[in-house]
Amino acid sequence: MQLTVRERAAFHMTDKTNPGNFFEDFRLGQTIVHATPRTVTEGDVSLYTALYGARFAVQSSSALARSIGLPQAPVDDMLVFHLVFGKTVPDLSLNAIANLGYAEGRFLAPVYPGDSLRAVSEVIGLKQNSNGKTGNVYVRSIGYNQRDQVVLDYVRWVMVRKRDPGILAVEPVIPDLADAASASALAVPEELNLSDYDSQLAGSPYYWEDYAAGEKIDHVDAMTIEESDHMIATRLYQNTAKVHFNQHTEKQGRFGRRIVYGGHIISLARCFSFNGLGNAFKVAAINGGRHVAPAFAGDTIYAWSEVLETSTLPEREDLGALRLRTIAVKDQSCRDFPRKDEQGRYDPAVLLDLDYTVLIPRRS
Amino acid sequence: MQLTVRERAAFHMTDKTNPGNFFEDFRLGQTIVHATPRTVTEGDVSLYTALYGARFAVQSSSALARSIGLPQAPVDDMLVFHLVFGKTVPDLSLNAIANLGYAEGRFLAPVYPGDSLRAVSEVIGLKQNSNGKTGNVYVRSIGYNQRDQVVLDYVRWVMVRKRDPGILAVEPVIPDLADAASASALAVPEELNLSDYDSQLAGSPYYWEDYAAGEKIDHVDAMTIEESDHMIATRLYQNTAKVHFNQHTEKQGRFGRRIVYGGHIISLARCFSFNGLGNAFKVAAINGGRHVAPAFAGDTIYAWSEVLETSTLPEREDLGALRLRTIAVKDQSCRDFPRKDEQGRYDPAVLLDLDYTVLIPRRS
Amino acid sequence: MQLTVRERAAFHMTDKTNPGNFFEDFRLGQTIVHATPRTVTEGDVSLYTALYGARFAVQSSSALARSIGLPQAPVDDMLVFHLVFGKTVPDLSLNAIANLGYAEGRFLAPVYPGDSLRAVSEVIGLKQNSNGKTGNVYVRSIGYNQRDQVVLDYVRWVMVRKRDPGILAVEPVIPDLADAASASALAVPEELNLSDYDSQLAGSPYYWEDYAAGEKIDHVDAMTIEESDHMIATRLYQNTAKVHFNQHTEKQGRFGRRIVYGGHIISLARCFSFNGLGNAFKVAAINGGRHVAPAFAGDTIYAWSEVLETSTLPEREDLGALRLRTIAVKDQSCRDFPRKDEQGRYDPAVLLDLDYTVLIPRRS
Repeated sequence: MQLTVRERAAFHMTDKTNPGNFFEDFRLGQTIVHATPRTVTEGDVSLYTALYGARFAVQSSSALARSIGLPQAPVDDMLVFHLVFGKTVPDLSLNAIANLGYAEGRFLAPVYPGDSLRAVSEVIGLKQNSNGKTGNVYVRSIGYNQRDQVVLDYVRWVMVRKRDPGILAVEPVIPDLADAASASALAVPEELNLSDYDSQLAGSPYYWEDYAAGEKIDHVDAMTIEESDHMIATRLYQNTAKVHFNQHTEKQGRFGRRIVYGGHIISLARCFSFNGLGNAFKVAAINGGRHVAPAFAGDTIYAWSEVLETSTLPEREDLGALRLRTIAVKDQSCRDFPRKDEQGRYDPAVLLDLDYTVLIPRRS
Repeated sequence: MQLTVRERAAFHMTDKTNPGNFFEDFRLGQTIVHATPRTVTEGDVSLYTALYGARFAVQSSSALARSIGLPQAPVDDMLVFHLVFGKTVPDLSLNAIANLGYAEGRFLAPVYPGDSLRAVSEVIGLKQNSNGKTGNVYVRSIGYNQRDQVVLDYVRWVMVRKRDPGILAVEPVIPDLADAASASALAVPEELNLSDYDSQLAGSPYYWEDYAAGEKIDHVDAMTIEESDHMIATRLYQNTAKVHFNQHTEKQGRFGRRIVYGGHIISLARCFSFNGLGNAFKVAAINGGRHVAPAFAGDTIYAWSEVLETSTLPEREDLGALRLRTIAVKDQSCRDFPRKDEQGRYDPAVLLDLDYTVLIPRRS
Repeated sequence: MQLTVRERAAFHMTDKTNPGNFFEDFRLGQTIVHATPRTVTEGDVSLYTALYGARFAVQSSSALARSIGLPQAPVDDMLVFHLVFGKTVPDLSLNAIANLGYAEGRFLAPVYPGDSLRAVSEVIGLKQNSNGKTGNVYVRSIGYNQRDQVVLDYVRWVMVRKRDPGILAVEPVIPDLADAASASALAVPEELNLSDYDSQLAGSPYYWEDYAAGEKIDHVDAMTIEESDHMIATRLYQNTAKVHFNQHTEKQGRFGRRIVYGGHIISLARCFSFNGLGNAFKVAAINGGRHVAPAFAGDTIYAWSEVLETSTLPEREDLGALRLRTIAVKDQSCRDFPRKDEQGRYDPAVLLDLDYTVLIPRRS
């Protein structure tokens, strides 16, 4: 039922709820200060472990973290990503149809329990779609800690509904985005000192030197998603997108059911990657990524990775970088490394195609 | 199978388990010291966020909390309520048929992670029901912190089974309960100083002055409840009422399924109310409340609020109070503000009718 | 599809993932340093409460813990057990068919939030099974804190698959295991001083003197397991056994569904035991235990206990020990104390038969 203005007045209705922004609401260069700053705590870290079974040792143990120069176990980079991302949802993607891609993501300062995060975005591109009903919005989102240090900086673009159909007289602007962060642009925490790194405790004998471009790793592990799991995760990130939570409306939606937050798949795949990449404890960059297909409760997620590139880091002998492509797949083993067919079409089982860079110790 | 005393002895059975109190066990003026004191931690806070998607900024960010004079992010008032309530269940409502109402609830001191809570109740009213099978018990429950400060004080009444049917020679005593806390009775943390309150970070441009009695707000957001969600919440609160947990017996019970703890609905509704009441970060009083109908896993919860009254606070220019009625509804949008029909009967979709008072910054 | 070596090379496949150890990989006397050290936090404690509804007061309240000489609320012993156990899974039981038993488990130092745990195991027995397909591996696993103190020491034996069928020329070695820890071997935290122990706050009037060998207690409380619950728990413990997580493969497995981690049943039973054993806050030893049957989501768990033995402790007048047998059962009340029939066969409802020792205050 759509009420008239008069009916609304009769009900004393007001419009204090956030309807989200539509394509027409975005302006090139516009800065958006996102709401709900958030102190990350050990409680968030425990939930992250309980949701994904994370096993990277540096994030798991403060004793081990201290042995490599850190003050305590840092917060998993992907948890930081989800928390910053979550803040942007009410302003950027409440009326989004699809989260189209990521680029130029860099984790610039470690986050520790007790740090308070906030997020700001800038609109860096706008392009209407020819159907007149939607447009693509490109934003650079920045997560800051309580000392105003940038902890995360990334670009994403989303397809957003227009309030009114029809073509506007707006010049399309598509930002020029880097293909991948160069090694010199990767941030390594200064205090990090890997001379005493214990790979046995970390759970993998493989160092940077043991990986080669072109190498493929089936991460073997897999998990079936339950509705509670993905909703608990998505609420933890204070991500408010309705499609994840409301079965009453989604049962009449496009898929007939709640859609799993794409970041949940990223974290599952990243955590599975421990099995084969156990020493690659630090995500330094998200170069690009695509949610190829939606996931739903009941899906069993598998993942595999390909090493795209190996590189050294300026002035660091103790660790190097691996650029990885990690593919998450549903209801299918990754033994055969499913991705695209010969026509370049994604295998129907593929959910996620993520291009990112991790840091990993070098043999001393 | 009901064992005889002899059979019990043969089995070496003893009765060390808590059978809960029946109506006959309560005495007017009786004081009950409840078990299981509890230190509230950042882990509890994270779980609360993960269960409800709480977004009130003061509770979310210690950095923001410090900017308004608090030592760190306080614990959400409703989490405090559930923790204190949970302690009272083994003594008050293990044999309860229904949680009938709340009154005179006041949050008197903020709770921070690290505080240890305990609870004491006093029986302030007793009334047998004419069927001779049940009686209503009125109690005032008080939650204390480790410094013996009262953090929460509230009245609730429950319908409790009698051990033996039949009418006892007990004079009915029904306490005289206030309709709502007066503004002068509301507790405002002394250290609170809202001169630097950042409404942009808090996520809402609406201050106390922007709300008027009679105004209705559809909170729009909604969530579908899963069995895991409500059981995780209810266990977190150490609430032991069997109806929430045991499908084996509940499948033969009144509803054929587990009943969601009523407080879970309170927290969902309160968290949805962020959308429209984003600056109303502090619950000061629970004036009254009724669980109109039970909720079950699979229900999708929506909520709307009506501003019942706006009031200033003695000696505070920086914030005011809003008395609210928040209605939680299942499987139905709140666009039309469902509550009662012309005969005063609740709409069958209504689950909760809660009358409470929140504090909200005033424009400076 | 099984790839040939050549096909694998063509795919640039490598074998960096952990395939787990097979029976042939274990050697008598072998020491295994397990991966993924873990700092236990208040977040883990909150999740433990939320998963099981734990109510032992000493673990719940730092204020109460301090009143009996402890620096803060200690971490629940069974949570410590699960965390240490979880570390051993990737090395010991990834290819296990069954977790056969426990023995000689002792909790030797209390664990507090902030402590970092790691685990080491020694192979103390090996025995092939006559089918040539499996063998039993006996290990002693030790959990250490960041000060290299032993917090937990226990033996378990598992039936592990062989890589290749056929009988090896290995002499069977079965370790000689104690039936139960003697009272003098039980560790009591030195700082513990129960002179001010408040049994009313703890929720039970029953002290050590009130229990007698042969006594049986039906714990009454029960909970239905959901898939999310047991998977969240098992991931929290960083236990990677596939059978708990992967419905895609388990639907074609032995049971057609995911199997609940046996330790989840231990914790449910232990937490239910609060009702009847509310003052028995400290587990001192796990003397033996058997997972009699697997549990699945949808099962409702009940538990009962028998007091096997009561004993005093050397140089402690303030507390004594109870050796208990706790039986967990599914979909059946424990009113009749189900365990074995006259032929010594377990009742089909029994899931767990656990023999352990708890500490409980004595009347002063």
